Amino acid sequence: MSGIARLRCDQVAPVLGDVAANSALVVASVERALADGVDVLVLPELVTCGYVFRDRDEALRSAITTDDPLFVRIRGLLDGTDTVVVFGFGERQGQRVRNSVAVVDASGTRAVYRKTHLWDRETLVFDAGDEAPPVVGTVHGRIGVLVCYDMEFPEMPRMLAVAGADLIAVPTNWPVGEHPERDRVAEVIAAQATARGNGVFIACCDRAGTERGQDWNEASVIVDQFGWVVAEAAPAAGSTAVTADVFPTLARDKSTSPHNDWLGDRRPELYEREVPRA
Amino acid sequence: MSGIARLRCDQVAPVLGDVAANSALVVASVERALADGVDVLVLPELVTCGYVFRDRDEALRSAITTDDPLFVRIRGLLDGTDTVVVFGFGERQGQRVRNSVAVVDASGTRAVYRKTHLWDRETLVFDAGDEAPPVVGTVHGRIGVLVCYDMEFPEMPRMLAVAGADLIAVPTNWPVGEHPERDRVAEVIAAQATARGNGVFIACCDRAGTERGQDWNEASVIVDQFGWVVAEAAPAAGSTAVTADVFPTLARDKSTSPHNDWLGDRRPELYEREVPRA
Repeated sequence: MSGIARLRCDQVAPVLGDVAANSALVVASVERALADGVDVLVLPELVTCGYVFRDRDEALRSAITTDDPLFVRIRGLLDGTDTVVVFGFGERQGQRVRNSVAVVDASGTRAVYRKTHLWDRETLVFDAGDEAPPVVGTVHGRIGVLVCYDMEFPEMPRMLAVAGADLIAVPTNWPVGEHPERDRVAEVIAAQATARGNGVFIACCDRAGTERGQDWNEASVIVDQFGWVVAEAAPAAGSTAVTADVFPTLARDKSTSPHNDWLGDRRPELYEREVPRA
Repeated sequence: MSGIARLRCDQVAPVLGDVAANSALVVASVERALADGVDVLVLPELVTCGYVFRDRDEALRSAITTDDPLFVRIRGLLDGTDTVVVFGFGERQGQRVRNSVAVVDASGTRAVYRKTHLWDRETLVFDAGDEAPPVVGTVHGRIGVLVCYDMEFPEMPRMLAVAGADLIAVPTNWPVGEHPERDRVAEVIAAQATARGNGVFIACCDRAGTERGQDWNEASVIVDQFGWVVAEAAPAAGSTAVTADVFPTLARDKSTSPHNDWLGDRRPELYEREVPRA
């Protein structure tokens, strides 16, 4: 059983198509995280390449493979530490271009996940992944991975919770949306409900930096296993880091009353039944 | 395609064990609803009998069957109208005691659903239902039914949305819980995320009236298909009605971008895959 872990979502502003600059941004973020004693660093979706591509060809030009020097560089920075880095990258995988996330620690690349639910024009640019999201065992707890729109499908975080995830790391690029003043942004509400309903911690790392006229919610957030926000980006803060010390393995206690348990109370056989229509 | 529907959650205060008084409460609520042009009236969970039973025997003493005169009385009040009433009742079903909900209109009892996810000491008092929640076709749209804790299992509202529900009616008894001042109560956040993620309207009718020392959130709420609150009970308002005019069949448009659809973007085959563990 591990103890307290310092989580950080580093809401940086990548530059569209500039892999060298963005790799330097990632390296600098990892260096800051190590200096600050961060245990789990989450960076945005597609942080290596940016988001608003005109087409597939443009995305391919800044896509990297999993043997890119950036992975070696991060691993090197993490050498001798227990820190884990989760970051999004545009991936060239054979003839395909993916919206991917890597989980890297001192031992190397622990997992690569390719986004399976593509949002809006991503459907014209990227090839959707066909594999289930992974859970990575670390000294800081078991980390599940989703990318942005994936989280909006409750089946996805549920899979990760059932597979034992304590914390779900969600690199995102949340296009700016309107919301009533009383409410947080819609995606944060989704993260809160998801965290509570599965009894897991969730860390969503949004991005900053207007790109071809597109702004973002800039609403990076760390949510506890009860669905409450423990750290969040200030509105319109731009590039900023959100950091919180949490106890990820507390997520293993799913009890919610003397007679209830978030996962134990599921009735999977019922969910396969046909809905009666009257 | 139907048009605008006036929804109401009537957050009344039933009296524990007093079926006669509670039946009169329900009748008065239906009469008010008809006077106010309400199309869909939702009443609390277990409104006929109250909630905080000491044991199964006590619950059985105020349980009714589906041929109780109350059903006939409601149907009679609705005669000649298109109004639909959704209310919770303690049900005696053979040797079992259920936490049930009925959907009644002028044609009679359209559906009865028995709560399938029991909360806390309900597990000692009630027999959990074993059937899927229903969807009832009405002139005001297709109404799905859940009871309180059922809604916290995302599989349940998902079933109803996939089966075509436009509106999910959720009779509840939400035991009072703490929440940060910035946030709404946890169950309302869950309703918001559920409505948005399925593109459906949700009407949760909570209750009022302290019962054996138990207070309630008194947080009845009507949420639109984007997850935003359109009507809600004021904090600690006690017995109060929450009413909103909405367009339930707008829920049939699940598109969220030119390339996305809340239900069409699901990948059910993926959700059956094994989660890779690293």
